[in-house]
Amino acid sequence: MELLKQKIKAEGRVLNNSLLKVDSFLNQQIDAELMVKIGEEFARRFAGETITKILTIESSGIAVALTTAIVLKVPVVFARKRKTAIESTDLYSTNVYSFTKKETNEVTVAKRFLAETDKILIIDDFLANGEAALGLAKLVAQAGAETVGIGIVIEKSFQPGAEKVAAAGYHLESLVRIKSFTNGQVDFL
Amino acid sequence: MELLKQKIKAEGRVLNNSLLKVDSFLNQQIDAELMVKIGEEFARRFAGETITKILTIESSGIAVALTTAIVLKVPVVFARKRKTAIESTDLYSTNVYSFTKKETNEVTVAKRFLAETDKILIIDDFLANGEAALGLAKLVAQAGAETVGIGIVIEKSFQPGAEKVAAAGYHLESLVRIKSFTNGQVDFL
Repeated sequence: MELLKQKIKAEGRVLNNSLLKVDSFLNQQIDAELMVKIGEEFARRFAGETITKILTIESSGIAVALTTAIVLKVPVVFARKRKTAIESTDLYSTNVYSFTKKETNEVTVAKRFLAETDKILIIDDFLANGEAALGLAKLVAQAGAETVGIGIVIEKSFQPGAEKVAAAGYHLESLVRIKSFTNGQVDFL
Repeated sequence: MELLKQKIKAEGRVLNNSLLKVDSFLNQQIDAELMVKIGEEFARRFAGETITKILTIESSGIAVALTTAIVLKVPVVFARKRKTAIESTDLYSTNVYSFTKKETNEVTVAKRFLAETDKILIIDDFLANGEAALGLAKLVAQAGAETVGIGIVIEKSFQPGAEKVAAAGYHLESLVRIKSFTNGQVDFL
């Protein structure tokens, strides 16, 4: 997605050889117009799939999941993150490790929002090690529902997430794919 | 907003005499079409104000802030919540007490996303005791910017938040106002 590449080049901040901050348009400040275009692009890329619901994870996934849902005319469900596990028979739950934050979070969704008949599109902002995306797919599997696709805004292709998602057989669509960060610059695949 | 009242009557769950759960369309599952209509309604109600940016708080404020921002063609900034305070000269920060969760969170926003020249519309899902809305207004004041309005999806008018916000002189628009919960039913003002 050319517009997104331009935005990353103009405003992304490469902090080290694996970390890109895009908090001026995605992760704290949100460029509303860009979100609309991202939603349209995800809807186009998954046009061949039957989708009943979009699943994402708080907080940075919500904006792109919502603009996609507006086009596809389906609801969004966002999974919640907590540092301390909460026992509940009403929740689907899995642990997700963040390599960036070096912490494990319990990721949960209320059981009543995922039905066995659901065809789920998972949407998230970044794909790096695949922990979040595959964690969300686990919640879908716990519900007996089907993950019909995984849509990612920014894939860091030099980390193992994309391969893991592909190896698990999911239809993956990443709007931009990053090969490496060199001298503070972003090299796209 | 009649559509929202109908939705609350149909799907809201009154848990006690002060707590309403609307997680089937706002707080975990998100009704995308309703979010669009809420965004249009906020934009209509604040049409007389000059707005350069929308400020909300993660996670449940993001969807309604974004659909409003799409209509107004301005960016959204969402404040982050943390249980443990983090010292940083790059952040505006204030403490917000949640009466529902009985915990205090530090609420922060990166300084570079609030400028002295900004005219800020604050958007949030609930107004109860006014802690979150007035906390966000404090961040705006720390930046030397101006809060031109506060837009709330669901106001619990029997709690002191609405009065506090009005007493502070802010232009408050609540899409629905709840007088009380009686026998598990919602009575609107």
